[in-house]
Amino acid sequence: MVIVYANGQWVNENDAVIPVDERGHQFGDGVYEVTRIYEGKPFMMREHVERLVKSAEAIRMDLGMTVEEIESLMMEAVERSGEKNCDVYIQITRGIAKRGHLFPKDVKPSITMTVRPMEVIAMEERLAGKTAIFHEDERWKNCYIKSLNLLPNILAKQVANDAGAYEAILIRDGYVTEGTSSNIFIVQNGELVTRPLSNYILAGITRMRVEQLAEQLNIPFVEREFTKEDVLEAEEVFMTSTTNEVLPLVEIDGTTIGSGVAGPVTERVAKQFLQTV
Amino acid sequence: MVIVYANGQWVNENDAVIPVDERGHQFGDGVYEVTRIYEGKPFMMREHVERLVKSAEAIRMDLGMTVEEIESLMMEAVERSGEKNCDVYIQITRGIAKRGHLFPKDVKPSITMTVRPMEVIAMEERLAGKTAIFHEDERWKNCYIKSLNLLPNILAKQVANDAGAYEAILIRDGYVTEGTSSNIFIVQNGELVTRPLSNYILAGITRMRVEQLAEQLNIPFVEREFTKEDVLEAEEVFMTSTTNEVLPLVEIDGTTIGSGVAGPVTERVAKQFLQTV
Repeated sequence: MVIVYANGQWVNENDAVIPVDERGHQFGDGVYEVTRIYEGKPFMMREHVERLVKSAEAIRMDLGMTVEEIESLMMEAVERSGEKNCDVYIQITRGIAKRGHLFPKDVKPSITMTVRPMEVIAMEERLAGKTAIFHEDERWKNCYIKSLNLLPNILAKQVANDAGAYEAILIRDGYVTEGTSSNIFIVQNGELVTRPLSNYILAGITRMRVEQLAEQLNIPFVEREFTKEDVLEAEEVFMTSTTNEVLPLVEIDGTTIGSGVAGPVTERVAKQFLQTV
Repeated sequence: MVIVYANGQWVNENDAVIPVDERGHQFGDGVYEVTRIYEGKPFMMREHVERLVKSAEAIRMDLGMTVEEIESLMMEAVERSGEKNCDVYIQITRGIAKRGHLFPKDVKPSITMTVRPMEVIAMEERLAGKTAIFHEDERWKNCYIKSLNLLPNILAKQVANDAGAYEAILIRDGYVTEGTSSNIFIVQNGELVTRPLSNYILAGITRMRVEQLAEQLNIPFVEREFTKEDVLEAEEVFMTSTTNEVLPLVEIDGTTIGSGVAGPVTERVAKQFLQTV
């Protein structure tokens, strides 16, 4: 069942729990994570919670909780849900205070969570691949922070959807940054390539796992910047995220990538990923 | 008294009215306005509401209300407050729906409002002037939209505050864009100068009024881009916003501007502004 938590209370999905003057609601002044549970076991939850702490530090917010306490709260939510395969969403904002830009004093962070059954993409559908478009990266300069300021991501994803595509690949200064909620990988001359970490992209947890899998599978892995043209001429392209896992992109802006279905490198990585979760 | 409205209900300040899965709360997926009421009379409310409608269109959100209906709701809030001099805050988000980036279907916008007594800056304090710092403009590329994605504004304003300053003047590509919640004007060779409108700045309502006042007062008014150095060498500098009105900046990054108090152009504009509200 769906589980919803808000500041110490376990509530129902549509229960009103947040006042108007909450800094998530008014400013997007907070951070979040989505973590996946497979067969009752959390997947890289520690890495997610550590990133949450880093995001909070980057926006100068004191969470007032340890990594262990946050993990324990998330696992309590999972247990209450009774779900074995589910997604845990947690967001923490700077709290509830009369509206004003400056950080409020003596205010506790506001913590909300949801747990929902995961939506599974079957391997057959996965290997058939998804489509994408290119879109200008209009976001702010600190995309390494997983913040609640997601309006540009939403708008780009909706443009993709309107074009019948699944994801928008974002371009800044002529180079691919990432997807609207994913990292982007290409296979170029047999090498698995993704953009190096910087302020312009999120350090994806699935991205981190794919780097580990590449080593296990003896696939040459390289971090370097690449362009729209590199993507269109790539042997293979895929996106990664917690909820999409390793997902091939086989048609981008109308151009077929490789053979039009998942290529051999993508297939190996996608299958290996599912074996290790 | 403080008045709070949420989706058809008049509630108390700390009442929980928003569920976790609200798109303002999770994404900042919405727009807002702050309008001022002087002696019971709304100041340029029509312009504010028209800008709200434009912001909503820019993020492809159907408000489902006319300009007149929004104005009427705001004025009802003012009447209920019993305040003659107050600020009306209204925010409208894409609504309440299970979390997902794509626009939800068949969902009504979520409307919340607060009315609070205005905080007055006395003329003597105003003419003494405030201080500012420069800060990199790290925001997204569509700052003409008055959206709820305000984290970069908050962080820059807090840096200013930590440095003992009142506002941060934002710099993008070597030029001043605006303040964290204000437009910036300089007096240069007797001309009143502000940056032309573009995607990088908000079309301030007070900015618009200052342009009108400059004409009334026979002050030459010019729109052109200017740099940090132009600011530091300016004869006068001031910021404008709904809640700050016309506010002199007399020390920036430690450099005294002009004589260190409001200059003659700023004083004329600030006083004329208060006479016309």
